[in-house]
Amino acid sequence: MKILLFGCNGRVGQVLTRIIDESNDMETVCGVDRNPEKASNNYPVYTSLKDVKENVDVVIDFSNHSCLSGLLEFGKSTKTPLVICTTGFTDEEKEAMKEASCDFPILHSGNMSVGINLLLSLVKKAANVLYPNFDIEVIEKHHNQKLDSPSGTALMIADAMKEELDDDIKYVHGRETKTEKRTQTEIGIHAVRAGGIYGEHTALFASNNEIVEVKHTALTRDVFADGAIKAAKFLVTKTNGYYSMSDVIK
Amino acid sequence: MKILLFGCNGRVGQVLTRIIDESNDMETVCGVDRNPEKASNNYPVYTSLKDVKENVDVVIDFSNHSCLSGLLEFGKSTKTPLVICTTGFTDEEKEAMKEASCDFPILHSGNMSVGINLLLSLVKKAANVLYPNFDIEVIEKHHNQKLDSPSGTALMIADAMKEELDDDIKYVHGRETKTEKRTQTEIGIHAVRAGGIYGEHTALFASNNEIVEVKHTALTRDVFADGAIKAAKFLVTKTNGYYSMSDVIK
Amino acid sequence: MKILLFGCNGRVGQVLTRIIDESNDMETVCGVDRNPEKASNNYPVYTSLKDVKENVDVVIDFSNHSCLSGLLEFGKSTKTPLVICTTGFTDEEKEAMKEASCDFPILHSGNMSVGINLLLSLVKKAANVLYPNFDIEVIEKHHNQKLDSPSGTALMIADAMKEELDDDIKYVHGRETKTEKRTQTEIGIHAVRAGGIYGEHTALFASNNEIVEVKHTALTRDVFADGAIKAAKFLVTKTNGYYSMSDVIK
Amino acid sequence: MKILLFGCNGRVGQVLTRIIDESNDMETVCGVDRNPEKASNNYPVYTSLKDVKENVDVVIDFSNHSCLSGLLEFGKSTKTPLVICTTGFTDEEKEAMKEASCDFPILHSGNMSVGINLLLSLVKKAANVLYPNFDIEVIEKHHNQKLDSPSGTALMIADAMKEELDDDIKYVHGRETKTEKRTQTEIGIHAVRAGGIYGEHTALFASNNEIVEVKHTALTRDVFADGAIKAAKFLVTKTNGYYSMSDVIK
Repeated sequence: MKILLFGCNGRVGQVLTRIIDESNDMETVCGVDRNPEKASNNYPVYTSLKDVKENVDVVIDFSNHSCLSGLLEFGKSTKTPLVICTTGFTDEEKEAMKEASCDFPILHSGNMSVGINLLLSLVKKAANVLYPNFDIEVIEKHHNQKLDSPSGTALMIADAMKEELDDDIKYVHGRETKTEKRTQTEIGIHAVRAGGIYGEHTALFASNNEIVEVKHTALTRDVFADGAIKAAKFLVTKTNGYYSMSDVIK
Repeated sequence: MKILLFGCNGRVGQVLTRIIDESNDMETVCGVDRNPEKASNNYPVYTSLKDVKENVDVVIDFSNHSCLSGLLEFGKSTKTPLVICTTGFTDEEKEAMKEASCDFPILHSGNMSVGINLLLSLVKKAANVLYPNFDIEVIEKHHNQKLDSPSGTALMIADAMKEELDDDIKYVHGRETKTEKRTQTEIGIHAVRAGGIYGEHTALFASNNEIVEVKHTALTRDVFADGAIKAAKFLVTKTNGYYSMSDVIK
Repeated sequence: MKILLFGCNGRVGQVLTRIIDESNDMETVCGVDRNPEKASNNYPVYTSLKDVKENVDVVIDFSNHSCLSGLLEFGKSTKTPLVICTTGFTDEEKEAMKEASCDFPILHSGNMSVGINLLLSLVKKAANVLYPNFDIEVIEKHHNQKLDSPSGTALMIADAMKEELDDDIKYVHGRETKTEKRTQTEIGIHAVRAGGIYGEHTALFASNNEIVEVKHTALTRDVFADGAIKAAKFLVTKTNGYYSMSDVIK
Repeated sequence: MKILLFGCNGRVGQVLTRIIDESNDMETVCGVDRNPEKASNNYPVYTSLKDVKENVDVVIDFSNHSCLSGLLEFGKSTKTPLVICTTGFTDEEKEAMKEASCDFPILHSGNMSVGINLLLSLVKKAANVLYPNFDIEVIEKHHNQKLDSPSGTALMIADAMKEELDDDIKYVHGRETKTEKRTQTEIGIHAVRAGGIYGEHTALFASNNEIVEVKHTALTRDVFADGAIKAAKFLVTKTNGYYSMSDVIK
């Protein structure tokens, strides 16, 4: 797979450069970056997509949402699949993405982690099968500098399950009582904060007789990388259409 | 749901009796047992299916495989769905089950635990999405009186993943070396034995950047009960066909 | 070790009877129970300590706090070590125990579980070494019928650590915010409630670089049994004095 | 606390520089490094201890064992406590350290992680209290590039427990059998290898009724840093003597 890295000299671009370099079935054929001299790469780096002469199978973008129009133009003229790993798009920009995806395949996701997207898929299935015989709780752990509790991802997990269940689910953030039992329709969400923990998310399902747990642990801040590559491999098999990571892990 | 408990006075029959009794939407309308006096139940207990006069929605069987022919006859004449929770059937008996299921619905599974069957489904999905970017390991924990290591369920889990993957997977039971790295195509299976642990099974998937774990813990030896009832509720919606627990949790 | 079981026909008495029976180095030489006929034992059962003719090394009591005076009398006259596993004593009764322990050894503890008592000792040590470089959190899990959150044991664990630390520790029961970081002097306590979980308690200590966790899991409701026997073995080596489980696990 | 960083421009030296800089009660007053220009520090960096003019409370060394003689000389003449975080010393060098420690305090440890050293202390205590009523197992997880299984630290943990127990303990590395129960005197050691896991070590103790687990997780490769600083704070209270990390966490 021949890859064009858009934003190749940023932190993420360099991580992807290394990962692709170490693989057998992928190659970075060129990069685009506004600071082409910033890093030393074993592939040509241009300042604009217009200068690209190489044949590429897929573009992976991890630059900034403001670069979107150039990327869409490149896609329309070359029909090259485009994996967009940046966030912060306006509604208009999202609309432009979807429109362009009629001509060539585009994948865009808020969270590029394969593991988290798989987790979402697994907990939906589990909630469907187990609720209401099993009670559901979500436990997440993060570092002590995090401002929001629970984490956005913990809420994504709880929301994904809530959506699946035809029931009036209520979130409970911590418990302190001497007299109140848990109700069947609540999901307890617990935000552990300690030290430098990168991020752990567990969905726990328990009946009187058994427990099922699905857990995700981030080991580094580079979880997106696996996802971007997996998305690229998925997208090169498509001719057009608008996709997200949940399509990749179907 | 009106239930006939076949083998109602055995240990399992009594657990089911209690669970059904405590529910709002189920009722044991009668039982069959060769020792009708052995337990005191708040429903009539017969020594033979032929004596049953009650209308029933489903039969749950946890007697012995030798009782099969009587159960199939009852099913054929009354079209009552039949959940078979016993094991040890001969090939001929299995054939007879399948044949009979053309006339009325039958469900039979080697492991009736909802949790374990769900786990099998989740790890297959996870293996499909994550391998070979993620390494796979299975860790199980059981009590110190267990004779087989790894457990049959751990092998079921590993086999289920192996079947999904188009690859030459090899199982490794423990590691001791000073010089050998793990190979990509191995699944390490680890059998922890200690104290009175009922049974824990974890499938672990790890890339360089993230870990996904799916874990099952047995809290009691009655995990089958949830499964038998869930299977019954599933089966009463069918008119015929041969099913297993994997259909229930689809 | 020759044991007198006081309250031998209660649920706990019967569990201990079985455990002692299965051991090689212990023997129940007789029992005392107000319902001597209730269970069938392979040792004589009396209705009163006054009828005991056997030589015994230790008395294990799991009857009721109201039986205390008879036990203390027996201890004073025979100098037999006495393990008291019951709770609910008045201040006067506790005073009487301590006084009597000048003449013969007495052990009494609110929680007889060896594991929980060890946990308390380990977390105190860990808190001492790690705080304030490491943040401390307590996570406990119990069944959905439990009325109090967090559990009494979780509070015992947090209190034990708080006592060790020369600091103004504050407990936080759940977190929900968009803007507030954890403070260094808080201990988050999280009460997970789901299904039939017997009881799990984890103390987690995390710095920016590492995590230490100490965890206790109850497998059955009989955790006290190991403790009572361990206490008995400890107490037969003493001639007098008032002890608790924390002395046993020193 | 005024600190002299010996080897301040290495990777570790720079981590410590940052940690000390961010603290309130410590200060790097100067550094020594053979490449004084390699990093930019907000303290003076010399090429030799002989050039140091500043008053320092403690020296932290993370250079190379070959620098030992210069450090011991500096210690003898200034009586400054010395924390040695390097490894690979010959027997003669170790002898020289111990001899010098009669004049001023020296601390040296093979593993500077506070967490691992605490873990060793906790599992020793636990093994003492729980064995042989509880079975002991060790589970460790590391990345797939690790050559040795089990890890050196896992063996340190098992050895520490073995030493405590007056028994003929045997290590078992993985289990595969259909017919053999675990024996009471074995410690199962399980080496999970997957993805990029930095390092996890768990000692598990289980009886028929309860489980106690003590677990360490490395979040970064910088676990030594907490240890070096904790060791320094310990050592400045001493006037002489030879210490290790186990003294620090007593």
